[in-house]
Amino acid sequence: MQEMEETNQNTTLAMKFTVQKDKLSDAVNRVMKAISTRTTIPILTGIKITAGLDGITLTGSNSDISIKSFIPLEENGSENVEIDKAGSIVLPSRLFSELVRKLPDEQILIEADSRLIAKITSGKAEFSLNGLDPDEYPNLPVINEKDVVSIRKDLLKDLIRQTIYAVSDSETRPVLTGVKWTIKDGRLDCVATDSHRLAQRSVSIESVNETEVFNIVIPGTSLNELSKILDDDDEKNIDLVITANQVLFKTRNMQFYSRLLDGNYPDTSRLIPSDSKTTMTLSTKDLYHSIERASLLAKEERNNVVKLRADGEQVEISSQSAELGRVFETLNTEKFEGETLHISFSAKFMMDALSKIDAQNVRIFFTGPMRPFIIRPIGDEGILMLILPIRTF
Amino acid sequence: MQEMEETNQNTTLAMKFTVQKDKLSDAVNRVMKAISTRTTIPILTGIKITAGLDGITLTGSNSDISIKSFIPLEENGSENVEIDKAGSIVLPSRLFSELVRKLPDEQILIEADSRLIAKITSGKAEFSLNGLDPDEYPNLPVINEKDVVSIRKDLLKDLIRQTIYAVSDSETRPVLTGVKWTIKDGRLDCVATDSHRLAQRSVSIESVNETEVFNIVIPGTSLNELSKILDDDDEKNIDLVITANQVLFKTRNMQFYSRLLDGNYPDTSRLIPSDSKTTMTLSTKDLYHSIERASLLAKEERNNVVKLRADGEQVEISSQSAELGRVFETLNTEKFEGETLHISFSAKFMMDALSKIDAQNVRIFFTGPMRPFIIRPIGDEGILMLILPIRTF
Repeated sequence: MQEMEETNQNTTLAMKFTVQKDKLSDAVNRVMKAISTRTTIPILTGIKITAGLDGITLTGSNSDISIKSFIPLEENGSENVEIDKAGSIVLPSRLFSELVRKLPDEQILIEADSRLIAKITSGKAEFSLNGLDPDEYPNLPVINEKDVVSIRKDLLKDLIRQTIYAVSDSETRPVLTGVKWTIKDGRLDCVATDSHRLAQRSVSIESVNETEVFNIVIPGTSLNELSKILDDDDEKNIDLVITANQVLFKTRNMQFYSRLLDGNYPDTSRLIPSDSKTTMTLSTKDLYHSIERASLLAKEERNNVVKLRADGEQVEISSQSAELGRVFETLNTEKFEGETLHISFSAKFMMDALSKIDAQNVRIFFTGPMRPFIIRPIGDEGILMLILPIRTF
Repeated sequence: MQEMEETNQNTTLAMKFTVQKDKLSDAVNRVMKAISTRTTIPILTGIKITAGLDGITLTGSNSDISIKSFIPLEENGSENVEIDKAGSIVLPSRLFSELVRKLPDEQILIEADSRLIAKITSGKAEFSLNGLDPDEYPNLPVINEKDVVSIRKDLLKDLIRQTIYAVSDSETRPVLTGVKWTIKDGRLDCVATDSHRLAQRSVSIESVNETEVFNIVIPGTSLNELSKILDDDDEKNIDLVITANQVLFKTRNMQFYSRLLDGNYPDTSRLIPSDSKTTMTLSTKDLYHSIERASLLAKEERNNVVKLRADGEQVEISSQSAELGRVFETLNTEKFEGETLHISFSAKFMMDALSKIDAQNVRIFFTGPMRPFIIRPIGDEGILMLILPIRTF
């Protein structure tokens, strides 16, 4: 204590506030999701802390995505923050987040001085941390909030989950690592493909500006991180603002920025067959578990390929591994129309698709053993999943 | 199905039984704890399945430890197993354990034929797996069950937890990677040391043979695995049988074998100081959390060293990192006797020791800044922990 006061005589106070530990801890956890320890820009390993007159803002960024979390002075009648001096500092993120969680008292006093040293006091524990210059922290893009689209958070979460799994993980065509979003005529269409499979979902949304058309490609990794923080507050909706190269998702106390991907997204509509030679309805869960069992052997081989043979009411799922053995299983179809079918496909792709479907039954449309086939949940016409088969016969 | 029956015509049935899925799954999970995927002995990647007249025995082994799990025909009035033909086979462990978990029906039919092919049928799923020859599976040691010691499982679990953390993880003195157990005069003494710290606990036990003295060193890794399976059944006690180079722990349906370590375990009694110059009583939890906070900075440095300064009723805990900053905290002692003290030690060693203590308060006995100090929980005289300090002053 004594030592601290001495050094303070030669410096000026740059920031000072008291905050509730649980509020700070929540906000830190949120912005940590944007921070990468592998960044090549040293200041981005830190959390930027800004004390303003209305509350505390924390910022984390990895240049692709940035997250801001705001702690207002008061909320629901209880006091979160008391500001003694507005200011800002950047503190090492990993250490700061661990430290906040482990402080002994429910109140935390944070001070920063002109030498960029932060003093963090809680109960009888007193930390003195070397900070970084907040002026060196990159500015977040200023986004014109004219064209705002509002979307239900639970719907957004489903949209992400049901499309993101089909993005490409290869950088050979970078635009395919993102999900294409089209906003037009009160509808949001999302589509993802890695050129071996495709997932799309279309939902109706409320847009302030009904005449404008937006076409953007959001990186899959950004949507993945966004999805993780959607449950963090109890607001039902999230606002979406789009610019030429950034998208911003925001609720009252949280802002999530992502860069957009450049490049022309391929026209996927021509991939989707419009006719069907064999159509069958199956229990989503039974089919999933049957493929999962077949995959136990198939995954030991290079391709993880399972075979499906459909002949009227019975569907046979099988696979084999030269070394381990083979598996064979029959499923009853709920409904079957069209020709007898032999087809092979990736067990992983099928399981990925089926696991995103909440409906009890799926309808699968085949147009032959070497043509892409379509999976649609019964009861939601907005969802379509497509898989390219693998030649084995 | 058809295909199976055809091949069966050229072979003879080697084993056939039906088992409840949950019972088989539990038994498989238990023996999997002994199986290493990195073994150099191919047959040890498998699970040995033996159908006898009284039930099914599964065996897993990594040569250091072996686990047998028995499923009796009947238990608590419900039927577990029906044996059609006694016999045995070895099946690939990882595949078999995943498969059992994912089978569709509550009943599983397992058959093996003379070609070592196993057929596993459950509901409409049918697996055919290539097995290995059970005659090639190593025999477990035959242990003479004359000298049996019985111990309460919860006590054994505590004993392991409170000593195993202090074993050496270096192979330079292999005997120190184990915990030394001494059974003598109705007492079991356990001690572990890596030569920088020591943990010991002594408990009274019931032994059939009160006159015999046992001195064994059990590998820490074995005790760690044993600890994980102790909760697997609802028996209160476990039996212990010791031979020259093996120890067997057994309950009604489980047997756990471990090899013993050779070599002379050092006499640790002379390490423990009998006098004390500074003695203090502290809250176990408060001290732990204070060290944990100091460690946040200390662990960024090479040694993870924290400093303790005791001067009457106040204890100061501090640490620093040249790069990140420093931390300083005071604790009130419950009781303090003796000289003023400055000492430095590993935060990790202190946290390891304190986290094994269930008592509310600990008494710490210091005999100077460069002498080992002793931690004892207040209320359990059987437990002693010792730590060597680090020179920093």
